[in-house]
Amino acid sequence: MEKLEPFSFSKRFEGVPLIGSAFAGEHPGLIPLAFGFPYPDSFSIDELAESSVSALRTAGTEALQYSGGPGQKKVLEWIRERSRLRSIHVDTDHILITSGSNQGIDLAARTLTDPGDAVWVDAPVYFGALRAFYLAQTELTAFPVDDQGLRVDVVEEALIEAAAGKRAMPKFIYVLPNYHNPAGVTLSVERRKKLAELAYQYNFYIIEDDAYVELNFGGEFLPSIYSFGPERVIYMSTFSKIVAPGIRMAWVISDPEVLSRIKIVKTDGLTSVFVQEMISRFLEKVDFEAHLKPLVEGYRLRRDAMVNAIHEFFGDEVSFEKPEGGFFLWLTFPPETDTTKLLHEAVKAGVSFVDGKSFYLVDKPTNNLRLAFSFCDEKQIREAIQKLAEVYKKQKNAVC
Amino acid sequence: MEKLEPFSFSKRFEGVPLIGSAFAGEHPGLIPLAFGFPYPDSFSIDELAESSVSALRTAGTEALQYSGGPGQKKVLEWIRERSRLRSIHVDTDHILITSGSNQGIDLAARTLTDPGDAVWVDAPVYFGALRAFYLAQTELTAFPVDDQGLRVDVVEEALIEAAAGKRAMPKFIYVLPNYHNPAGVTLSVERRKKLAELAYQYNFYIIEDDAYVELNFGGEFLPSIYSFGPERVIYMSTFSKIVAPGIRMAWVISDPEVLSRIKIVKTDGLTSVFVQEMISRFLEKVDFEAHLKPLVEGYRLRRDAMVNAIHEFFGDEVSFEKPEGGFFLWLTFPPETDTTKLLHEAVKAGVSFVDGKSFYLVDKPTNNLRLAFSFCDEKQIREAIQKLAEVYKKQKNAVC
Repeated sequence: MEKLEPFSFSKRFEGVPLIGSAFAGEHPGLIPLAFGFPYPDSFSIDELAESSVSALRTAGTEALQYSGGPGQKKVLEWIRERSRLRSIHVDTDHILITSGSNQGIDLAARTLTDPGDAVWVDAPVYFGALRAFYLAQTELTAFPVDDQGLRVDVVEEALIEAAAGKRAMPKFIYVLPNYHNPAGVTLSVERRKKLAELAYQYNFYIIEDDAYVELNFGGEFLPSIYSFGPERVIYMSTFSKIVAPGIRMAWVISDPEVLSRIKIVKTDGLTSVFVQEMISRFLEKVDFEAHLKPLVEGYRLRRDAMVNAIHEFFGDEVSFEKPEGGFFLWLTFPPETDTTKLLHEAVKAGVSFVDGKSFYLVDKPTNNLRLAFSFCDEKQIREAIQKLAEVYKKQKNAVC
Repeated sequence: MEKLEPFSFSKRFEGVPLIGSAFAGEHPGLIPLAFGFPYPDSFSIDELAESSVSALRTAGTEALQYSGGPGQKKVLEWIRERSRLRSIHVDTDHILITSGSNQGIDLAARTLTDPGDAVWVDAPVYFGALRAFYLAQTELTAFPVDDQGLRVDVVEEALIEAAAGKRAMPKFIYVLPNYHNPAGVTLSVERRKKLAELAYQYNFYIIEDDAYVELNFGGEFLPSIYSFGPERVIYMSTFSKIVAPGIRMAWVISDPEVLSRIKIVKTDGLTSVFVQEMISRFLEKVDFEAHLKPLVEGYRLRRDAMVNAIHEFFGDEVSFEKPEGGFFLWLTFPPETDTTKLLHEAVKAGVSFVDGKSFYLVDKPTNNLRLAFSFCDEKQIREAIQKLAEVYKKQKNAVC
């Protein structure tokens, strides 16, 4: 056997940052505020077990076979009906089941772009989406977020520049409108409407990542961006936050032309027919509102525990927008704080979070961090925030 | 709202052929010899139902959660042990669970290549793989297959030309060594060994698609290509043919450097943890050899029914290699026959198959076609071959 020469892998890996720090701290006893996971008690195990048996015993031959279709009919119909709450009125031919929302984001990005194309995102931005856009070898530009979500006015200025040939026109803009990951904020109705209008005017798409929409702590449901621009929005949502992530089932809503292309790029075949049959039965079996209510209440109580603990242990040292839903709270420290350094000490003290810089395009220190209130219980959350405050104060005093 | 301009989608779709004719014929009463599907009775529905309940009741909290790992430990261990039968001796860090083999092919292709890179395939070739390679925007060259599988001698000549700068060196060669889809043939041991040596010598990868290996009708198990070149082979196999396609579970075996890159491109997260837990319990519950034996026997009986019917109804009009395993029989007609035209008439008469040209890079008529003996029962198979022979003879006489 000859000596093995090095092999030159695809260039698509060159732009992909590794997100190491976020999940570095899997020490025993660590309270993981890094994990954007549902809390374990949120899973309806008995109902899912009954649904899986029912799926296999009554439709096993179909559920276990290959299928070329867009998804199980009753699941598609459930999504269609539920989407009306987001002011989305479509037939099931506008819906495709995907293996998680991340897959949908990846497929949509590769459907809309070629390497070198411009893609615009908000900042901070969900790093799973960023990774997909880097892998698609797109050129990313980030736009700021305030307490009303993405600054659509800044986006419009840039579009005017692009139309004047001063910068590349984006193929799409990625937006997470409800209970933003990581910023926790919600995009205002005015901005949704305006963004959709801009998509028509300047001929780009919007990828609307609506993963957290059902986890609403009491406010009204806002109309989706899709409802203002169905021909230029690819809308996504998921069962991960309302049933379970381990089933890997999400969906894309878009016009059939886009869906037909997404289906071509989707090389894993139809997302598990068996799991779809199971979820179909689960959705038939449960009263969905009754299922959702305690789930959302569980997240609201955790959010409250986190907010209260931050007030108790940090006082005025930090600032944040109180999230009205979702999984995350975005904490801002005084400008001199470097949350990547803070993370290092926090993990030693028994708390993890994701440092702010993981959510930006530029690799430089930031004074923000993301806390997930979704996974731990209220006692753990209080304890973790107390520890985090101790670590922060110690580090601050060491600097002074 | 302004008038909507056309949108320019990704160029990756330009090279992708639609495989329409293969699945055109979903008429009632049609006998689908086009479908490369397991036969319905092959599914162990009761055992899978028990396994799904057991997975949820004993490990529901983990099975329903997010996970970042390579796969469920016991499933990985089962694959490791089973792979020894292919002369593959690896630890579980060399194994990654994927959502079907097609996903593995797509991920491997995008890990190894950039658009414009050369990829070599055999011809005829599985169209699912072709589609992935077109989507990856690679430049394809096809090499002939004979009764011993891929003509490795022809490949070597081309590699010598590539080394001399007369053509592009491939980044990988795609091979389906056992019970080839569609050609039904098996790659000889000598050619496996030679191909692995060439991969080291000329520094390319081999994607070894071993989807059908367990469906062996009595011959010996040959060592995998991987066993001759572990540093330059990405091996794939699947639960689709031995448990069920609807669960969407397959695996990739490769060195950890390649796997770490494949994991980055795999944006659907870990393939359903719940399904993995279920299959883990299924594999614990069943005696796998006892499970496999009637399954393989079912395919062998169907193969025999097809071979006998071809002899009975076609006589010497057609030729084929008798498949020693797998799902498919590749039928060759006299040179003047156009199987695409034949398909058109066959569907009207109540039989479907896949015309030969769907398995080639060049869009021109061929005198071959693929018959799947995997899905229909023996009575249906005989009836379908009889109908097919009638259609063929009618068309032949019309031409004369």
